[in-house]
Amino acid sequence: MSTLKGNAVVGQSGGPTNVINQSLVGVIQNIKANPNIDKLLGCKHGVKGVINDDYVQLNNVPDELLERIARTPSSALGSTRDKPDEAYCKKIFENFQKNNVRYFFYIGGNDSADTARIVGEMGIKAGHELHVFHIPKTIDNDLRVHDHTPGYGSAAKFVAQAMMGDNYDNKSLPGIKVNVIMGRHAGFLTAASALARKYENDGPHLIYIPEAGVSEEKFLADVDAVYKKLGRCLIAVSEGMATPDGKTYAEKIASNVEKDSHGNIQLSGTGALGDYLSGLITKNLTPAGGKKLRVRADTFGYLQRSFAGIISEVDAKEARTVGRKAVDYSADQKNIEGSVCMTRKTGSSYAVDLHLESIKNVARETKHMPKEFIQNGNDVTQAFLDYARPLVGDLPTVGSFAELNK
Amino acid sequence: MSTLKGNAVVGQSGGPTNVINQSLVGVIQNIKANPNIDKLLGCKHGVKGVINDDYVQLNNVPDELLERIARTPSSALGSTRDKPDEAYCKKIFENFQKNNVRYFFYIGGNDSADTARIVGEMGIKAGHELHVFHIPKTIDNDLRVHDHTPGYGSAAKFVAQAMMGDNYDNKSLPGIKVNVIMGRHAGFLTAASALARKYENDGPHLIYIPEAGVSEEKFLADVDAVYKKLGRCLIAVSEGMATPDGKTYAEKIASNVEKDSHGNIQLSGTGALGDYLSGLITKNLTPAGGKKLRVRADTFGYLQRSFAGIISEVDAKEARTVGRKAVDYSADQKNIEGSVCMTRKTGSSYAVDLHLESIKNVARETKHMPKEFIQNGNDVTQAFLDYARPLVGDLPTVGSFAELNK
Repeated sequence: MSTLKGNAVVGQSGGPTNVINQSLVGVIQNIKANPNIDKLLGCKHGVKGVINDDYVQLNNVPDELLERIARTPSSALGSTRDKPDEAYCKKIFENFQKNNVRYFFYIGGNDSADTARIVGEMGIKAGHELHVFHIPKTIDNDLRVHDHTPGYGSAAKFVAQAMMGDNYDNKSLPGIKVNVIMGRHAGFLTAASALARKYENDGPHLIYIPEAGVSEEKFLADVDAVYKKLGRCLIAVSEGMATPDGKTYAEKIASNVEKDSHGNIQLSGTGALGDYLSGLITKNLTPAGGKKLRVRADTFGYLQRSFAGIISEVDAKEARTVGRKAVDYSADQKNIEGSVCMTRKTGSSYAVDLHLESIKNVARETKHMPKEFIQNGNDVTQAFLDYARPLVGDLPTVGSFAELNK
Repeated sequence: MSTLKGNAVVGQSGGPTNVINQSLVGVIQNIKANPNIDKLLGCKHGVKGVINDDYVQLNNVPDELLERIARTPSSALGSTRDKPDEAYCKKIFENFQKNNVRYFFYIGGNDSADTARIVGEMGIKAGHELHVFHIPKTIDNDLRVHDHTPGYGSAAKFVAQAMMGDNYDNKSLPGIKVNVIMGRHAGFLTAASALARKYENDGPHLIYIPEAGVSEEKFLADVDAVYKKLGRCLIAVSEGMATPDGKTYAEKIASNVEKDSHGNIQLSGTGALGDYLSGLITKNLTPAGGKKLRVRADTFGYLQRSFAGIISEVDAKEARTVGRKAVDYSADQKNIEGSVCMTRKTGSSYAVDLHLESIKNVARETKHMPKEFIQNGNDVTQAFLDYARPLVGDLPTVGSFAELNK
């Protein structure tokens, strides 16, 4: 194969994370590892920047600034929810031809991986050789093949710390509390709330994820049982919480729901699900003695993906590494496409191996929580906790007077 | 005055904060500073624990555990929303007589201060001398006389860091975003969102607090103007956001709202206000070109008062100090009652003076944002930023490619 010389484009796509800029900085800092690449162009707002010819030159950004950008939440180049069709991809490709772009590094989820794949295939057909590399990110942790994805650990850390604090809040002023956590199809992020537990009877007491459907009757019976036992109940639910027939509660609630540009129903940026569930509890459960139930709901919303200062250090390091590695892989001319993939090493301490996986094995379809991570349809297993803990890292040290009774 | 010997009770009341346990630990660690105090009893769930005779002995708690409890969110002894009437106060007082309680340290807001005051006055009337000390806490920062209150700095830090992240999120995927922040009557916490700004055009672009009423028409016009200029708009609103005639939006929205045990309308633990405002924007504003507006709302909810790991170090230190100081003041037998009060020293660097203020000057009524902190009814002034910054402390260091164009 001939040596492919030209320019490179790097872009960020989809929902931001707290470490997506680590991957970007990994690409920028390592770009010299591929001597065939001349200019590195950052496209503003993902592929939208490509078709608008809106680029920023990234070859000579000072390291001091790069290190600050790496610790900054969200996508420093801007992001997009555009899901390019054939015509859109053609425009991308034509811009790449015009700018002599031969390498495309796209940081995103499964939709972004698919975009990269299509543009790469167009290149092959048109005789404009183009090597495309997908750099994974998603707080949903739902990419196939990947053991886990950069962005998940930091969002999971936010969820765990939020739930830790809310557990103490709920213990101090007892009642029933519903916390709605991101996750349309995959329950990994909601499941991470279980990491908050330290003492006996700590919440969350119930965890509902999209993969384990629950009827309203079962949900209410679960809540009632916990409340009767503990006098309080802390509940974690995924925004994609579903009934046993696979229909989401969000669909049930909303007669007139907003759909995003991928045709997905809007689940974030609204308190509707939390308010629905707290209303359901208030209407159906009555505590002993006719006292009024204290029922509240919080929707963690966008904070969980972009809160400044809550970063898993393992996640940050891995996000940087997959960015750097993409450039390393691009230097090997036999790699014409691929997604930078982490698999977990077997053994007692946590470590990952990296390899380049064909994008077609990552694109479009998503991964779900495996059965061995789910317990009774309303909790997670020890296997899940063992899986998630190293990705999240240390949580704040806390204490309770309960220790005096030990 | 004779030397008052006996036992002491310490309790926590009202909405928890992230540093309320610092004050508790300050009392526990310093209790030997008053040699007239024998046993230190912690009442579980505030005054509810007193009337239920539900105490934990706190004289010999290991320091290692105390230091962990001090860093743990929420009220380690449990809290209560009970607002005692005359009969309830009598039960408190009778329990104090039974247990030979001569000193009462109550950590709470203005309602808790009032409870302490009433019980103390009952003591005087009944000839059972009782010295009562109010230790301030509230994320609302609305205690009269006090320059600021422990708990505010940490909650304000959470709000600032949340808004920093959300500003980058909103920049990356532009749209209109409403963030609802706690604060029923006082806008201090919502105002702290302005600390998130670093670069030109950073959000929050609009800030609405209870003290500056705004009509729906003015609100929409403000949002429209920002959106037309920047293509995005990040809005911070207090849960107690009000119309110019002083009516809250929450009252407007809810025909059937829940009231808490103090007769206040429930503003937290629901996404109703955020959803109402985002609906208002969606219905009334149409962007150029007929494109659909992307409008989202998040309600920060209970996270802002109890998120594990987000603590202002100044706030933590001051919360500990006011707890310790209460015990110091109690040793001086001329102090029969008082609220431990911080005033700010004049001068260029931040420092506080402490004194004991009569509880009647703190109890019941609340403080509002002064006029000199409010700008145009939709923003805060530099004077507010100068006031709030030392209370919050350092925020995460961030970076942007915008610096390249300087």
